[in-house]
Amino acid sequence: MEISELGEFGLIRRLTENLNNENPSTLKGVGDDCAVLKPTESTQTLVTTDLLMEGVHFDLTYVPLKHLGYKAVMVNLSDIYAMNGTPRQITVSLAISKKFTVEDIEDLFAGMKLACEKHHVDIVGGDTTSSLTGLAISITAIGEALPSDIVYRNGAKETDLICVSGNLGASYMGLQLLEREKAVYDAQNQNSKFKNQNDFQPDFSGYEYLLERQLKPEARRDIIEALAKANIHPTSMMDISDGLSSELLHICSQSNVGCRVYEDRIPLDYQTAAMAEEMNMNVTTCALNGGEDYELLFTVPLSDNDAINKIEDVKVIGYVTKESLGKVLICRDGSEFELKAQGWNPLQ
Amino acid sequence: MEISELGEFGLIRRLTENLNNENPSTLKGVGDDCAVLKPTESTQTLVTTDLLMEGVHFDLTYVPLKHLGYKAVMVNLSDIYAMNGTPRQITVSLAISKKFTVEDIEDLFAGMKLACEKHHVDIVGGDTTSSLTGLAISITAIGEALPSDIVYRNGAKETDLICVSGNLGASYMGLQLLEREKAVYDAQNQNSKFKNQNDFQPDFSGYEYLLERQLKPEARRDIIEALAKANIHPTSMMDISDGLSSELLHICSQSNVGCRVYEDRIPLDYQTAAMAEEMNMNVTTCALNGGEDYELLFTVPLSDNDAINKIEDVKVIGYVTKESLGKVLICRDGSEFELKAQGWNPLQ
Repeated sequence: MEISELGEFGLIRRLTENLNNENPSTLKGVGDDCAVLKPTESTQTLVTTDLLMEGVHFDLTYVPLKHLGYKAVMVNLSDIYAMNGTPRQITVSLAISKKFTVEDIEDLFAGMKLACEKHHVDIVGGDTTSSLTGLAISITAIGEALPSDIVYRNGAKETDLICVSGNLGASYMGLQLLEREKAVYDAQNQNSKFKNQNDFQPDFSGYEYLLERQLKPEARRDIIEALAKANIHPTSMMDISDGLSSELLHICSQSNVGCRVYEDRIPLDYQTAAMAEEMNMNVTTCALNGGEDYELLFTVPLSDNDAINKIEDVKVIGYVTKESLGKVLICRDGSEFELKAQGWNPLQ
Repeated sequence: MEISELGEFGLIRRLTENLNNENPSTLKGVGDDCAVLKPTESTQTLVTTDLLMEGVHFDLTYVPLKHLGYKAVMVNLSDIYAMNGTPRQITVSLAISKKFTVEDIEDLFAGMKLACEKHHVDIVGGDTTSSLTGLAISITAIGEALPSDIVYRNGAKETDLICVSGNLGASYMGLQLLEREKAVYDAQNQNSKFKNQNDFQPDFSGYEYLLERQLKPEARRDIIEALAKANIHPTSMMDISDGLSSELLHICSQSNVGCRVYEDRIPLDYQTAAMAEEMNMNVTTCALNGGEDYELLFTVPLSDNDAINKIEDVKVIGYVTKESLGKVLICRDGSEFELKAQGWNPLQ
């Protein structure tokens, strides 16, 4: 169905008619000039926002709309968890070009709803409008945390341990794989031999995990919960969206400290290493600068060493130093390099 | 200066280095994964968001970037006032195409800052990224209000008076004027006689007020303050962004009531009427459906009649009826028509 058949208010009605608000702090969701929230008295409010543009952040030739909706929500929830908070509400704004049908936008929204249901988050408002070219998605997430629980980027102290959750570089290698198969597809389409586009079958075998990391990332609520259970309060934390190097430099500069990180401790999945080798890329470079990992990077006091080692899926990759000692990567062969941010920069 | 020279973080630093947070509820603004807010304990939180796309919501051939920034903020603040609340914070996300320089974005941001300063609002976060085509602006505004002060759309009651602030249709006529002068400019540029583009002088004389309403709308905090001072608590309220008809129908449907509105009571500025005549348009149609007025539409109990008449720049245009009596416009000649929403619909 064409979107113009429904119009703006018809489309909003269709997308939002089955929304159920789960959080007691959501007093009024979609349907008025504003959403009305009643944050818990003891907590502070966390707010984060992201704007995703077609052709810059996603390529719809290989990203299914439901996955895109899911990911667009996850990247915002990840920022709330990175403050050690709990996400409660989001608003969703969409600018839609004429190529999309009502069913397309329903798919996109279904992915958003799925991500919200999984994290008990309410969709409380937004905006829908048209776009001359492509799709734009803007999400704002609102969360809460007790003041004593909130973790900023600026609290890292000398001798703190530097920790990361999960593994790094997988999402970036998933993107490389998708780009490679797209190039193969494009080449075949220009070739008269393949007249029927359906003849093409992309080859992802053995690399399903990489695709999942790229297309359907999961915000690490489980890590936040595990840290709380173990009574570990990170001294600094952020999520890894632009690449480990870039994020480590943010924590160092905001905390006025240096760091020493060990190449052989950076967690990698087997598929990430295999794909990097197949593509003749340096896997450490991919892990340091790949981005879109949505893992958590945090520091904990040295005294938490035993406790942190007991937490599944968290690895200590180095430690915090005096600022004057710089930001150093120690390679497998013992050589040392200064860490540089070469992560994804949308404006360069 | 090209934006790529600064990169994302350099641009953010440049735009935000002089931000001063005014509100005690802003604990942490730009610079971490999230902004951290501490809403007043007695209040509820209001959240609204808008996504503005180049070519759909604004035409940069005649909209100066500073005005655009100002307006982008105002349209969000207007939604907070429409709940009878006070705006406190905004987040700003920008997607920027290659045609913009650092100075352009500074102009845009200067307009946003000006609007925020005027309304004592803090810019606490956002996102900057690139766009393949044109500019996208997404703003989320956060405000607060005492629970007993918040006004929804669904509280209008039979016999309530229907009120509007300011005057209607001026912004729409300003847009017609800008479009007309742009067409003249384009025609002259195609004509060999005008080789120098600087020869062209658009003719806005006598219509400056219309331009101001289109390019630099003001959110009506003054009306909210005047109502509070007069101890008037509207039974329903919203701001007029899509046109009076469209908004009145929202209030009626959400309040399960009908309405009778008098054509001769709809407030018009002299310039709006003069421009409509010059363009051979029906001025009432423009006032009912023009949109972008950012005036307040609200209902008050009949017992507030005397008090409301004392408030400057507010006019009673009709009254609320039983739902079964429909939504009716009474024309100057006494004839009656059913109100229809023909306002701006970006998806039709």
